[in-house]
Amino acid sequence: MKKIGYSRNFEDVHKSSFRESVHTGIFKDGSPFMLQYSMFIPTLQGMADEEQKRRWLNRAMNFEIIGTYAQTELGHGTFIRGLETQAIYNEKTEEFILHSPTLTAYKWWPGGLAHTANYCIVMAQLIIKGKNHGMQPFIVQIRDEETHMPLPGIKVGEIGPKLTFSGVNNGFLGFEHVRIPRENMLMKYNQDGTFKSNPNSKLTYGTMVYVRVTIVFGAATQLARAVTIAVRYSAVRRQSRPKPNEPEPQILDYATQQHKLFIGIATSHAYTLLAYWLWDIYTSFKKDLESGNLDRLPELHSLACVLKVVSSKDCTRLVEQCRMSCGGHGFMMSSSLPQIYGLATAACTYEGENTVSLVKALDQATKGKPLSPTMAYLGERSVTTKWENSVDGIVKSFQKVSIGKLRAAVSSLKQYERSGLSPEDAWNKSSVQLISAAEAHGRAVVMSVYKSETDKYASTVSAGLKTVLYQLVELYAIYMVLQKMGDMLLYGNLTEADVTVLQRRYEELLELLRPNAVGLVDAFDFRDEVLSSTLGSYDGFAYERLMEEAMKSPLNAEPVNQSFEKYMKPLMKGKL
Amino acid sequence: MKKIGYSRNFEDVHKSSFRESVHTGIFKDGSPFMLQYSMFIPTLQGMADEEQKRRWLNRAMNFEIIGTYAQTELGHGTFIRGLETQAIYNEKTEEFILHSPTLTAYKWWPGGLAHTANYCIVMAQLIIKGKNHGMQPFIVQIRDEETHMPLPGIKVGEIGPKLTFSGVNNGFLGFEHVRIPRENMLMKYNQDGTFKSNPNSKLTYGTMVYVRVTIVFGAATQLARAVTIAVRYSAVRRQSRPKPNEPEPQILDYATQQHKLFIGIATSHAYTLLAYWLWDIYTSFKKDLESGNLDRLPELHSLACVLKVVSSKDCTRLVEQCRMSCGGHGFMMSSSLPQIYGLATAACTYEGENTVSLVKALDQATKGKPLSPTMAYLGERSVTTKWENSVDGIVKSFQKVSIGKLRAAVSSLKQYERSGLSPEDAWNKSSVQLISAAEAHGRAVVMSVYKSETDKYASTVSAGLKTVLYQLVELYAIYMVLQKMGDMLLYGNLTEADVTVLQRRYEELLELLRPNAVGLVDAFDFRDEVLSSTLGSYDGFAYERLMEEAMKSPLNAEPVNQSFEKYMKPLMKGKL
Repeated sequence: MKKIGYSRNFEDVHKSSFRESVHTGIFKDGSPFMLQYSMFIPTLQGMADEEQKRRWLNRAMNFEIIGTYAQTELGHGTFIRGLETQAIYNEKTEEFILHSPTLTAYKWWPGGLAHTANYCIVMAQLIIKGKNHGMQPFIVQIRDEETHMPLPGIKVGEIGPKLTFSGVNNGFLGFEHVRIPRENMLMKYNQDGTFKSNPNSKLTYGTMVYVRVTIVFGAATQLARAVTIAVRYSAVRRQSRPKPNEPEPQILDYATQQHKLFIGIATSHAYTLLAYWLWDIYTSFKKDLESGNLDRLPELHSLACVLKVVSSKDCTRLVEQCRMSCGGHGFMMSSSLPQIYGLATAACTYEGENTVSLVKALDQATKGKPLSPTMAYLGERSVTTKWENSVDGIVKSFQKVSIGKLRAAVSSLKQYERSGLSPEDAWNKSSVQLISAAEAHGRAVVMSVYKSETDKYASTVSAGLKTVLYQLVELYAIYMVLQKMGDMLLYGNLTEADVTVLQRRYEELLELLRPNAVGLVDAFDFRDEVLSSTLGSYDGFAYERLMEEAMKSPLNAEPVNQSFEKYMKPLMKGKL
Repeated sequence: MKKIGYSRNFEDVHKSSFRESVHTGIFKDGSPFMLQYSMFIPTLQGMADEEQKRRWLNRAMNFEIIGTYAQTELGHGTFIRGLETQAIYNEKTEEFILHSPTLTAYKWWPGGLAHTANYCIVMAQLIIKGKNHGMQPFIVQIRDEETHMPLPGIKVGEIGPKLTFSGVNNGFLGFEHVRIPRENMLMKYNQDGTFKSNPNSKLTYGTMVYVRVTIVFGAATQLARAVTIAVRYSAVRRQSRPKPNEPEPQILDYATQQHKLFIGIATSHAYTLLAYWLWDIYTSFKKDLESGNLDRLPELHSLACVLKVVSSKDCTRLVEQCRMSCGGHGFMMSSSLPQIYGLATAACTYEGENTVSLVKALDQATKGKPLSPTMAYLGERSVTTKWENSVDGIVKSFQKVSIGKLRAAVSSLKQYERSGLSPEDAWNKSSVQLISAAEAHGRAVVMSVYKSETDKYASTVSAGLKTVLYQLVELYAIYMVLQKMGDMLLYGNLTEADVTVLQRRYEELLELLRPNAVGLVDAFDFRDEVLSSTLGSYDGFAYERLMEEAMKSPLNAEPVNQSFEKYMKPLMKGKL
């Protein structure tokens, strides 16, 4: 992924991506230091005042202290106002008293929290003289620096086994009236001491956008890993004999297998380009922010939410399609495909569960300037034109679908309101349609950006490569039209005759891409150590590696397991 | 599931279902005795002659010997002729010599094979005087009955960690010129000694149909477990505050959550009824078979393949939807949702990977009488009628879609043939469309059977229950129409105005079903021990159980893990 040839200002994305890939090679299933890099240090950088940075930031950068970030609670997720952890200010001692009033107030999930971190940024309700001033960030030492023992009043532990992230050391954290000095509230945006508004929100949005860019990039990367494994294995595996006198073909020669895999290559390209594009917008937004211009903030936040949703959703589905395309062997942990699925699907839940994210996106979208750049097409008059069988035509159709779905959803919302429902109930009843419209907006953006970014990039590469890149863009466009055929027929002017033409062109593209399939996944350039898959190694010795890994199983250490004498023999001799 | 009120001849399905649920309560993630019940004993019953039954069947029933069934090899799956394991007959000694000529010939996957089984039914290529007589079943002792040591020439072991089935003890098995007596070839269908035809195929088809009935039933059961957990948790979890002066609502009150879950309840009903219905057909087919009438065999096999595919595919998707509807907590193994997903998705791969199954189904379908009962609608003339907004109308539309897709696929196939492609290449190029048509046939059958079986059943229950059951049928019908909207618009006479009406009725049904949602999942009647979920217990103490399970983690045995002194402290003190 790192070789895609761009030379723009993505250092942060790349640094994070490089760290990720080293992590993957070493820790296999997540690292306990993830939150140190991704949340603890950035939050100190963004929310601590200068004095606080002097105290903690350098020590964190040097790994003298290891931190994490605790917001989510056992009983509370995205609804921030519902969080229960309290920080009550004591004016006499100039201390905050952190307290978890209930079991559901326990912090739950933070990476590294269980046994790794000795410091933690804790989000808690600030209460001064009985008045709630909303969520504020506090830095709390949770373990002794010499003995690593939990400090008094700190209830910390591990949350137990999960679908994936077995290396992340996710923990829980409760407080029993824990006193911390006044200086431990992060102060960069709280120096007036009034807490009346929530001045952090601008910055918080900025961080949220940044995190979502990395999620889009991560989704594309996980999909690239999965499709690399599946395509390489499909060139090794042979099955059936459709022509009696020929050998069993590579399963990659079957159109049904190509149909499962090639869209994975194209989708990984689409979301990689999208992540870069979003990163550029974010960068220019940061400049706007510094000069006090916040006009695009709601749109950007909304866009980042929507793109987080479609990227995590699509890549998760396609990672799983890759796993299943490897048959029984894709079920083996040694293929790494189950773990990649776990990593991919987690992104559908963390940093805003996907449905909640779409609801937030809709909420934000209504607050910005109505015709800001990425949403401008929503204001265009819908013209009934004939279907245009080209990628650019398909881009327009995706926009028409987005407009059509949004109008239908809003019309339904208004009908419910007219029928006497409260605005909240009307919103709830039409929410299935509304979030579907928000998703359609995301897809329109992805389709449009994939095409336009490829246009920019294609002029810099060889004619041969250009041809293949456009074949992938076209494959993606047609695949998505056929996937969303209902919407396209309703709102995109697609006809039955067009469907036949597109289907045939799709089948042709599969055949055209077949000779380059292995080359395209090799170009993702994963080292075997990072890919870490018996099925997907560069040399193609899939069966040998499967057996080699199997032999490492502890159950293969002895020819007869102790369970035989203990349990099996009595059972079989009728003595149990 | 067991209470659904039927009193037909399902003992075998029920016995298997009861065993399953006890297994689930005890072994949690699969049992090493699964294959003893599901394959070893049934194969002896079906393929051994009387003398062979006397030798092995009773001992197996008494657990004096424990067996498994080995067919799939490391390099070979559904393509039987490609299997490499050899059984070469030696006329002088009257023995078969079993041999694995390559690494890819090793048997791979059989449950219980690693350390549990001491006998194994092995499928191998029978070779007599250099001539291959195809796959035949052999019973092979693989371990000593007293010491459990592998016998000479037997290479047996465990295949390593998998996505799920950690209790199943899946193994590999290779042979180095292992001699077994002539009497160990299962002889029921081989008594003439010619092996010219494959007389087993009739019986094999029967067993395959039986196994597919249990897969449909199993898919419905796993979905019922997942939706029980998710609905109960959604009644415990509260989030956000859409109305400022009211408490945070149960997340089950959000239409988006209902949209994710209620279809799971309906789909589990649909596939349960379908499994029973298919069981009845299988039973009557067995009578036909005994009287020598094989006319319906290809159709039945084809139908069973297609229904295996749609049931495993739909239930897997909906199980995952249930898991994701529980947010971060659905990611915890203690919720059991990840394991249920593993069990559900496995069914998409085993007993015929889903794509391969559809291809087989198409192949079989062309061999039977063209107008046999479940496919009769395919021969009906398509009449362009208006969309009929009722469940019966929707049943007809699903049939129209199936007809329409099959015709489009066949027309594409013929075009490719006319353009000069070989029949095999033409088939390959149109295979994406062909298998999609086969799947549409499956969906038409499911929709039709769900409605007609509910009609039969509804007359026996109270008016209140009847209303709710039909609400579920209608919800299912409309959900599926909206899911397959593209096909419905192309082939089913659906119009934009109908979509609006259906969408509104769908939103109404969600609201109507809400008060009965918890009751409907309680009616699946899973004991907490079988459900085995922190989130889904009957008493609703989800958070307490999450913490209780977390505390059982070995990582919570000590406040400071040994890794601190060993690795972390040197790192943090700059000494690493």
